[in-house]
Amino acid sequence: MPTRAVPETIGPAPAVLEANQRFYAAFHSLDIAKMSSVWLQEDWIQCVHPGWDLIIGWDEIRDSWARIFANTRRIQIALSGVRVHAEGDVAWVACTEHITSAFESSFDEALVQATNMFVLREGAWYLVGHHASLLLNVPESKVQ
Amino acid sequence: MPTRAVPETIGPAPAVLEANQRFYAAFHSLDIAKMSSVWLQEDWIQCVHPGWDLIIGWDEIRDSWARIFANTRRIQIALSGVRVHAEGDVAWVACTEHITSAFESSFDEALVQATNMFVLREGAWYLVGHHASLLLNVPESKVQ
Repeated sequence: MPTRAVPETIGPAPAVLEANQRFYAAFHSLDIAKMSSVWLQEDWIQCVHPGWDLIIGWDEIRDSWARIFANTRRIQIALSGVRVHAEGDVAWVACTEHITSAFESSFDEALVQATNMFVLREGAWYLVGHHASLLLNVPESKVQ
Repeated sequence: MPTRAVPETIGPAPAVLEANQRFYAAFHSLDIAKMSSVWLQEDWIQCVHPGWDLIIGWDEIRDSWARIFANTRRIQIALSGVRVHAEGDVAWVACTEHITSAFESSFDEALVQATNMFVLREGAWYLVGHHASLLLNVPESKVQ
């Protein structure tokens, strides 16, 4: 879970960044109820996990997180290069995820580039798109 | 370049799909002037090529396409699983790119998942975000 939030913002979008932090807190918690609360639970939302095919709609996206959570014992996520842009009631955050995962009998480290899309509904920002992909190189100096 | 546009649309967003087609036509053309015309040329726009770090701002994004075009002799791109969603003056398209590239002395085939983000400016849709990442598997049956 990111503990230091010193993002490079473009425009003042603290509420979007807070929604982004809630997403990563839910990811860190491995708690499907927390993860459910950050997404807009509609049938058009989309998710791409690293190397996975596109997943459309909340039901399938929820299932994908449930599978990831069931197969992960513990996860640490640090973010770097956090950038936000808001355009009306839509906003997106780009960030690099530094992920350490503990599984049943192994560890894995990954550097992942993510684009997270949010929409504003009744005063709250909800996640509607997550595109995450593995980076080929690990630029250690970029870790915040 | 995609020749058959029979996308699975969510909501009627033909102008967005047309902008998406113009992007892939520009990619296919390897012509930087055409590629320049599809992007909103501002300093906050973003691009992730497969495995590359996030690129921010038109100047650097333009340079990245110029590098790709300079190193590619010919490219064919077919799309599948095209989905669009519009939210006010923002829209995004998810699609799978089936790319065949010819270089100086080699060929490469890649299956890439892309999220393309557009904004509406004075009646026209411009690309403001492109996140492309390699898929691990090649599901041949999905090619349209």
